[in-house]
Amino acid sequence: MVLVSSLTPVFVAVLCVVIVFLLKSIQKKERGPKTDSTPTVKSRPWVDQDLQDDTEIIKEEEDGDWADSEEDVPHIPYSPRRYADDVMLRRSQEFYALMNERRSVRSISPEPVPREVIDNVIRTAGTSPSGAHTEPWTFVVVEDAETKHKIREIVEEEEEINYKQRMGDKWVKDLQRLRTNWVKEYLDTAPYLILVFKQTFGMHASGRKKTHYYNEISVSIACGILLAALQNVGLVTVTSTPLNCGPQLRLLLRRPANEKLLMLLPVGFPAKGATVPKLTRKSLDDITVFI
Amino acid sequence: MVLVSSLTPVFVAVLCVVIVFLLKSIQKKERGPKTDSTPTVKSRPWVDQDLQDDTEIIKEEEDGDWADSEEDVPHIPYSPRRYADDVMLRRSQEFYALMNERRSVRSISPEPVPREVIDNVIRTAGTSPSGAHTEPWTFVVVEDAETKHKIREIVEEEEEINYKQRMGDKWVKDLQRLRTNWVKEYLDTAPYLILVFKQTFGMHASGRKKTHYYNEISVSIACGILLAALQNVGLVTVTSTPLNCGPQLRLLLRRPANEKLLMLLPVGFPAKGATVPKLTRKSLDDITVFI
Repeated sequence: MVLVSSLTPVFVAVLCVVIVFLLKSIQKKERGPKTDSTPTVKSRPWVDQDLQDDTEIIKEEEDGDWADSEEDVPHIPYSPRRYADDVMLRRSQEFYALMNERRSVRSISPEPVPREVIDNVIRTAGTSPSGAHTEPWTFVVVEDAETKHKIREIVEEEEEINYKQRMGDKWVKDLQRLRTNWVKEYLDTAPYLILVFKQTFGMHASGRKKTHYYNEISVSIACGILLAALQNVGLVTVTSTPLNCGPQLRLLLRRPANEKLLMLLPVGFPAKGATVPKLTRKSLDDITVFI
Repeated sequence: MVLVSSLTPVFVAVLCVVIVFLLKSIQKKERGPKTDSTPTVKSRPWVDQDLQDDTEIIKEEEDGDWADSEEDVPHIPYSPRRYADDVMLRRSQEFYALMNERRSVRSISPEPVPREVIDNVIRTAGTSPSGAHTEPWTFVVVEDAETKHKIREIVEEEEEINYKQRMGDKWVKDLQRLRTNWVKEYLDTAPYLILVFKQTFGMHASGRKKTHYYNEISVSIACGILLAALQNVGLVTVTSTPLNCGPQLRLLLRRPANEKLLMLLPVGFPAKGATVPKLTRKSLDDITVFI
């Protein structure tokens, strides 16, 4: 009895230590994931919300065939134009030659571009397929000089942080050699900035939330068709995804919270004396497997 | 003293209960997220691995300008063909008209298609921009009837599970009216199946893991250009993302673990009597905001 009672304080002490240890380990588990995904949350409000894409989450619920969940609509015959084999071959060669001339260009001329051409280019992007035909894209075309400059200020502020804090010295040196830094003059000079937003969800007439299946993939496909349409008319752009600027740009352009910036494309003619890095592309054999 | 010692058992009992409770809560926290993301892990091996896209994770480390991390390469002058305004306008109208005729087609004719045309279509997709010019795509073109049939078996087995277990009765009824179910005959009849894989990472010559920035967005853009190239030669396809089939198809086609299936495109001429749902597309005003 005396033994036991003399041990009581030890019991309590040991068990308290155990409890404290367990509590700490719980807190770790709670904090762990969060800190992984928001290392810079203070300097970048809502950045997670906007980088996060709910596409993955809902994949489990979705059938993989993109048009399957269309409402009950009548079917109509479909017989598109058919080309002879030699014509197909020629067309495929010509289109490849045209697209193979496309390069990402950062020196964009301030020369004006007909607005009707931009309209048609965006109409073309809008023909893209999308998960369950949700057409989850919004193209914000900025022509207004003041708004373009505000966009430049937001992007350059974030980019400067990227260069000075996020990227290693070696990388920064490489970029200096590439004459690339956080200064994005094209955001002022390009006659148009096209900011492509993905609608992460929509609304049913009933007001119920409408799932936008694969919205990021769908909008990216639309961007591919947009790039083809720009190349087809001799306009240039550079595919940029301004890091952490999405939320600020969304607010500047007054887009709703269900829309997240996917890409920013400055559009125009190449500036006189524009240069591009001398790069090669992988050959057909490097990117294709035939079975 | 007597009081304390008589309380000792109580102390121990209470504190043991507390400890057990804390242990349980730790286990919950550990299990929680996992079960969320792997509800069907038993019937679908590695499905998480393959659905998971590490693009989001690495965004934090990346500069948003896609070509910035190219190695130090010389720059060369770039002056693409320039069209007069009226030519640009005409070309933009014609390309829009052509792309606007594109529809997702599920009835594909077994008629042969010249292999050179498919080569050029894939070459064209390979001109797509990609994060840091990583070109993170592999196009597996399946012409072999036996392999196509194995692909069909894998897809239909999974699709049947989707229809019977994942989708609600109403949805399934809608699909019956749409004459759509888990039977994907086009996987046998189409002369070519193009399976598009995203390379989630690459390898440096040194053997070090090479980050493929934005690989899913890059490959999706390439798919958009692929769709444009197919439409340009009068071939049809349907953009499908076979749910949970990626891992099995990757093994069937012997692709390495860093490659994940993004899309499966059956390619050919439309079958005689092919129909498509009578759908409309959003107007320019519905998808564009001008500022």
